[in-house]
Formats: sequence, structure tokens, C-alpha cells
Amino acid sequence: MRHFTVNDVPAVVWTPDGPAGPLIFIGHGGGEHKTAPEIVRYAGRFTAAGFTVVSADVPNHGDRPYDADLDRKATAMRARVDAGENLAVAIAAFQDEVSRQTVGEWRAVLDHLGAERVGYWGVSLGCGLGVPFVAAEPRVRAAVLGLGGGSANAATAARISVAVRFVIAWDDERIPRDSSLTLFDAFGAPEKSLHAHPGRHSDPLPDQELDAQVAFFSRHLLTHPQG
Amino acid sequence: MRHFTVNDVPAVVWTPDGPAGPLIFIGHGGGEHKTAPEIVRYAGRFTAAGFTVVSADVPNHGDRPYDADLDRKATAMRARVDAGENLAVAIAAFQDEVSRQTVGEWRAVLDHLGAERVGYWGVSLGCGLGVPFVAAEPRVRAAVLGLGGGSANAATAARISVAVRFVIAWDDERIPRDSSLTLFDAFGAPEKSLHAHPGRHSDPLPDQELDAQVAFFSRHLLTHPQG
Repeated sequence: MRHFTVNDVPAVVWTPDGPAGPLIFIGHGGGEHKTAPEIVRYAGRFTAAGFTVVSADVPNHGDRPYDADLDRKATAMRARVDAGENLAVAIAAFQDEVSRQTVGEWRAVLDHLGAERVGYWGVSLGCGLGVPFVAAEPRVRAAVLGLGGGSANAATAARISVAVRFVIAWDDERIPRDSSLTLFDAFGAPEKSLHAHPGRHSDPLPDQELDAQVAFFSRHLLTHPQG
Repeated sequence: MRHFTVNDVPAVVWTPDGPAGPLIFIGHGGGEHKTAPEIVRYAGRFTAAGFTVVSADVPNHGDRPYDADLDRKATAMRARVDAGENLAVAIAAFQDEVSRQTVGEWRAVLDHLGAERVGYWGVSLGCGLGVPFVAAEPRVRAAVLGLGGGSANAATAARISVAVRFVIAWDDERIPRDSSLTLFDAFGAPEKSLHAHPGRHSDPLPDQELDAQVAFFSRHLLTHPQG
């Protein structure tokens, strides 16, 4: 595990024991950071399969300095929810705003690493920020997304044409199931698949789901190197 | 491929090249039969992974003689649909009726083969007949089901406690999506997973879904032989 920064964005990269394979960029969850235990677990699974894995702290998370402007926007978002606005809608709108910053930051990380063929992995906040990133960044060839709803970013999701694996926690107490299904519906990717498992929003993904994700990334990043 | 009959039910078994592994029983689709091209494709994938595969003709299908009573019931079912009854509800009720016969027939096939540790695979009609079979038959330790709705057999599905992989064709023109989700909700299995892919009711399953099903059956039938 090697820490580095790109334009003051703190990031971390994990490399496999053997030759460094294609890169998987992991977007962490809300309130988490680039080396949260779940991120380390995913990074371990992916590097064991030969991938290089990178993650970066999102603004106001991890080793990032306090961002008063973003904090004000988050407070305003919570106030709208308190005033009766739908929680999922408000969260999605806020994440869309943050993504205007993170898309550029994450692109700079890919530039810094010289990555050409990239998988994206992100659930919850990592999905809200990941949808605009995957839609905007042509180096991303496959994406695992999930635990996120489609109220704010369905139009952006429709522009995604690379393969998408979408994960739903079937008993998610934060993202209404209909909103998750709406986002899955919205993806423009000809190859998309939905995997749902019993569990709540923050439950760890089942081991077999991680196995399936390794197979998914391997199929799209390793077996068609010219594609 | 070896043909045999058990109590006049025509059946077929495929064996792997190496040692015969656990059995997978495949229930075929409506209007199909035990050696339909898709069944042969699945049997090939599963035997390549070391499984023994068996399938049997459902009444009024394949090499079975004409059953006037069942045909009358099917005609009555179609008449109810013509008279305005919901198609999925009518089909599910009819399949439930047929399953009273097939559960016993399929048990006799397992007896005949001396099978002890069995996976069940069935979509569409194979799901409608499979739900009561998996619920009733303790030798079945894992089941792939799908392309079926939950209007008639949710209570039966709730009695299933073995691992279930449930497949939905996301653009299924025959099974309303809500009805599929209702059936997935109903399964009592602590380990259940939903895999959905774009496609219509009769489209072939994607190769990667078959790979995932091989992994699913391997995990439940091969790696816990005492479980």
C-alpha cells in the first residue's frame, strides 16, 4: 500500500504480488475514507486476482481538509430533508454536486498513474459519485455500482455504455427499492446485470458477490485487452 | 447421454468425463422437453464442471403420451385468461396443479439414480414446477429458479430454506416484473440472490450467468459434502 497525493488529493494504491494488471478505482462510501476496512477488504480481493487498486479521499472525508462550502451545502441538504423533501432525492442532488469536483480529481489520479484500462467500483456515495465519473471517463471500461438510487442521475446513467454490474441490498433501509430499480433501468449499457442479496445498506457484501465481481472485472479488463 | 424411464416417465442423464459428481436435476420449459437445445447447452456446462445432469419430460411434453385430462385443464386455464383472468395468475395456478404430479415423478427419478445431494435448475415452467419440488424434497440442497412469478406459490416458496439463485429477464414480456420480485421476496432461504439481465422471456441466458450458476452449484454441492 503506497500513499500519494495528486493536486493535494490524498490517494492510496495497492499493487498485486505479480505483474501489475489493469487498475480498479474504488470510490469509498459516505463518512468513510480511502482505507476504510471494507475498502481494504475489496482491495485485497482485487489485488489477489492481479489487479492494481487505487482509492482517493472524497472532499470532507479522510485526510482531506475541512471544506466549509461543501459542509454548508450538506447542512442545507439536511435542512431540506427536515423540511419534508424526499431523503433519497436530496442526497442524490448533493452527490451530483460533489461529483462535479470528484470527476476531475479522479481523472487526475488516472493521469498520474498512467492508467489506460480501468474498472470502477463504488456503492452508496461511491455510486452517486461513480455514475457521473463512469459516464464522463472513457478509460473506464466496466463498473460495479450499487446501493444507490436513480432520482438525480438517471439521465447521466443513460450515457453509460460500458458493462455495469449493479448491486442492491434487498433490505436497504436508506435507498427505496423502486429508486434502485429505476437506476438499473436507466443504465444505457447493453451489458448490465443486477445482483441483489438480502441485507441492509451497510452490511458487508457476501463473499460470493465479491467472487462474481472479480470474474466480472476479469472478463472486461483482462480478456479483451484491445477492446 | 443415456435415456431411461422411471414409472413410464421418460428421462435422460448426462455424466461427466471424470468421476460423477453431485446431481443437477433440470426441469424444462413449457412446450419444451428433456433434450431441448437449451437443456443440452446447460447440461454441457454442468457436466463440464463435474456434475451429473438429469432431466425428465413433463406430462404432455416430449415423449410423454397425450394426457386428455391435463389438456382439458390447460384449455380451461386459457379460457379463464380469455375471459379476463390475469395471465400470470392463471398460468401459476395451472403449474401448481401439474406440480402435484411432477413432484412425485421427479422424486422417483432421484430414487432410481440413488441421488443424495442434488441441485435443482428450472426457469419458466421449470420454476413453476420447481418451487413445489424444492420445497418438498430434502435431497435438493440448492436451486436456480427464475422467469416465474409469485402469484400462486409464494407460500410454497416461503418453505424453501436451501440457497436460491433467482434469475429475471429484465424485459420479460410474460412475467410482470413485480410478480418476479414478489417471488424472490417470498423465498424463505437465508442465502438467496437475484440476478437480472436485459432480455425477453425466451432469450438464452448470458454465458456469464451460466458461469455464475456453475460457481453457485459448486459452492453448495461440492464444497460442503457433509453440510
